[in-house]
Amino acid sequence: MAARINEADIPNSLLFESGAEAPLVLDSGASLQGLRIAYKTYGRLDAARANAVLICHALTGDQHVASEHPITGKPGWWISMVGPGKPIDTDRFFVICANVIGSCMGSSGPTGINPANGDIYGTDFPLVTIPDMVRAQARLIDHLGIGTLLAVVGGSMGGMQVLAWASLFPDRVFSAMPIATAAKHSAQNIAFHEVGRQAVMADPEWRRGRYLAEGTRPVKGLSVARMAAHITYLSEAALQRKFGRSLQDRAMPTFSFDADFQVESYLRHQGFTFVERFDANSYLYLTRAMDYFDLAADNGGSLATAFRATKTRFCLVSFTSDWLFPTADSRQVVHALNACGASVSFVEIESDKGHDAFLLEEPNLFATARGFLDSAARARGVAEGGR
Amino acid sequence: MAARINEADIPNSLLFESGAEAPLVLDSGASLQGLRIAYKTYGRLDAARANAVLICHALTGDQHVASEHPITGKPGWWISMVGPGKPIDTDRFFVICANVIGSCMGSSGPTGINPANGDIYGTDFPLVTIPDMVRAQARLIDHLGIGTLLAVVGGSMGGMQVLAWASLFPDRVFSAMPIATAAKHSAQNIAFHEVGRQAVMADPEWRRGRYLAEGTRPVKGLSVARMAAHITYLSEAALQRKFGRSLQDRAMPTFSFDADFQVESYLRHQGFTFVERFDANSYLYLTRAMDYFDLAADNGGSLATAFRATKTRFCLVSFTSDWLFPTADSRQVVHALNACGASVSFVEIESDKGHDAFLLEEPNLFATARGFLDSAARARGVAEGGR
Repeated sequence: MAARINEADIPNSLLFESGAEAPLVLDSGASLQGLRIAYKTYGRLDAARANAVLICHALTGDQHVASEHPITGKPGWWISMVGPGKPIDTDRFFVICANVIGSCMGSSGPTGINPANGDIYGTDFPLVTIPDMVRAQARLIDHLGIGTLLAVVGGSMGGMQVLAWASLFPDRVFSAMPIATAAKHSAQNIAFHEVGRQAVMADPEWRRGRYLAEGTRPVKGLSVARMAAHITYLSEAALQRKFGRSLQDRAMPTFSFDADFQVESYLRHQGFTFVERFDANSYLYLTRAMDYFDLAADNGGSLATAFRATKTRFCLVSFTSDWLFPTADSRQVVHALNACGASVSFVEIESDKGHDAFLLEEPNLFATARGFLDSAARARGVAEGGR
Repeated sequence: MAARINEADIPNSLLFESGAEAPLVLDSGASLQGLRIAYKTYGRLDAARANAVLICHALTGDQHVASEHPITGKPGWWISMVGPGKPIDTDRFFVICANVIGSCMGSSGPTGINPANGDIYGTDFPLVTIPDMVRAQARLIDHLGIGTLLAVVGGSMGGMQVLAWASLFPDRVFSAMPIATAAKHSAQNIAFHEVGRQAVMADPEWRRGRYLAEGTRPVKGLSVARMAAHITYLSEAALQRKFGRSLQDRAMPTFSFDADFQVESYLRHQGFTFVERFDANSYLYLTRAMDYFDLAADNGGSLATAFRATKTRFCLVSFTSDWLFPTADSRQVVHALNACGASVSFVEIESDKGHDAFLLEEPNLFATARGFLDSAARARGVAEGGR
């Protein structure tokens, strides 16, 4: 199981490796030697290299946006959005999705090997930030011979990367679609992440981060972390609608600590299944990267400065019942973009599904993405058929 | 430490014990032998026995509502509300506060001794419900020679007890003040409780509930549970105002898993201090009791039936930023009481402090309590001076 957690051992992704001569200098000041990025592509790059769409994944997502997950066997995490004829149409666009650094699906991260000593990194892996993830992706985009991306699209932590892309590489982002995200992580969100990290680190099987080397895994702690996080992905209304106070396979409560209520059984299941596919240290690293994200702070305290003179077309999306990244967070970005005179549209979608709405069947999201990408493609002269 | 956790070993509370001949039959069907209730009183019972106010405490509260906590040495948990000249005026009223059964401050609970075998109960203690807590308290009120309480007051889980008192013993409750509470626990709240329980039970030191007998304590798991719960007691706005993204005693992030942010440091402190004063099994039992609470379900699905023909005067209070027990929960009770033709007033207090507001300096809460109790006392002929 310890071996299976690293997707590089399951070679169904493409792998980009930058040589030892070009370490990635991180925001922390540390250098990442031997950068590896596991990625997937869908569709074909057109002759003008103008139809590339980069999709940035969320905290526990991966490169398998529209293809089967190698561990769970489940369909890609955004097949409602990405594929032939879908809003992000792989018949027309060349779609790239890369596992972020710090994660555990084949890109450089704590499950990888430390070239300095040949050991599994564990918590010796350097802390990475959202801008670090984006700089790493930019190397991949260079490698693919693409100058300017037609679009960068992503939700949640993926949306943070979209904002960082537009800020760090304005000339390389023709259009940007940050969904259900924020330009900085809130105190409440940091607090929830800290609970999750403490749950992992409280598990004696965590072994101060060296569990893979010692042949164990902190599955109980990681499961609790996932359960807590999962509540924040849903809305109170969605929990009420899906579960309410219904009991699980029983007519009467058991007067015990069993999972009497459906919502308990559901949460436990979320915890159990998550630990099968995700690495505990990666969970620490990626939550930390989100906590540190503050695009205004990185630009002298001004979010408008982060986007000064931008020519990127923006489309922001939020969901009414998302309390993790509420509409106010998106509005803050919209105000900063307006202050820059940027081209920006903003759609707040009525939904009771909470933060998770961006991953679910939301016809208004699909219509918004389709319209925005079509408009960007036409403005850039990308053919209808794609090639 | 294991010994200190049981307040009965620190005899600064009064103790009521019902004999072995009168076991308390619980909602689960189990019988609780040798009921013990640790309690405190403040002020004096008047000659007519008409000025008694019962205060019901919340999940991690106790009988020390207006007197020093024997373990932490901190002042009582509601000294802003209860004391000489305070809204619940101990110069006028005889105030009683009893540790709920299932808790760990001297009343019957998992830290106590199982009379069946002389061992510490641990998870052999029977599950208790909110109505069970109230039936136990009614025995104490009998013992004190009080027929009808002038008022029953409490917030959160205390408010659930207030509602149960009014439903189970309508003739014994002259007035009732349920604050920041609900007639049933929501799916989201059950979900948060389940995360906390899983955090405790994931700790190997929990030892399947037998940690006291085995001389250990699951402090890490309980600390994580407290951290998660504590977030739900505050509002997003309060967290933003108190902490925002401020760093703790440092100018720059450390790029590590240290508590860089003030909000992390604060939460860790909440976890550390909680485990010094509270028992992990009690935490399981009391969260479970709250989850099971559903006064409508107990009355054939009708909340109005729970209060049919009531003569109790009600005053409900909610807080605008309380997302654990939102105003809608109180409104549901108000509607049921209106359907019964009950005397009911309802105050929604503007506050950005979240659920915790009921424990904090909230002048509108104090004014509401003072006015409501004064009116009840005058209606019942309780003298101004109390005696």
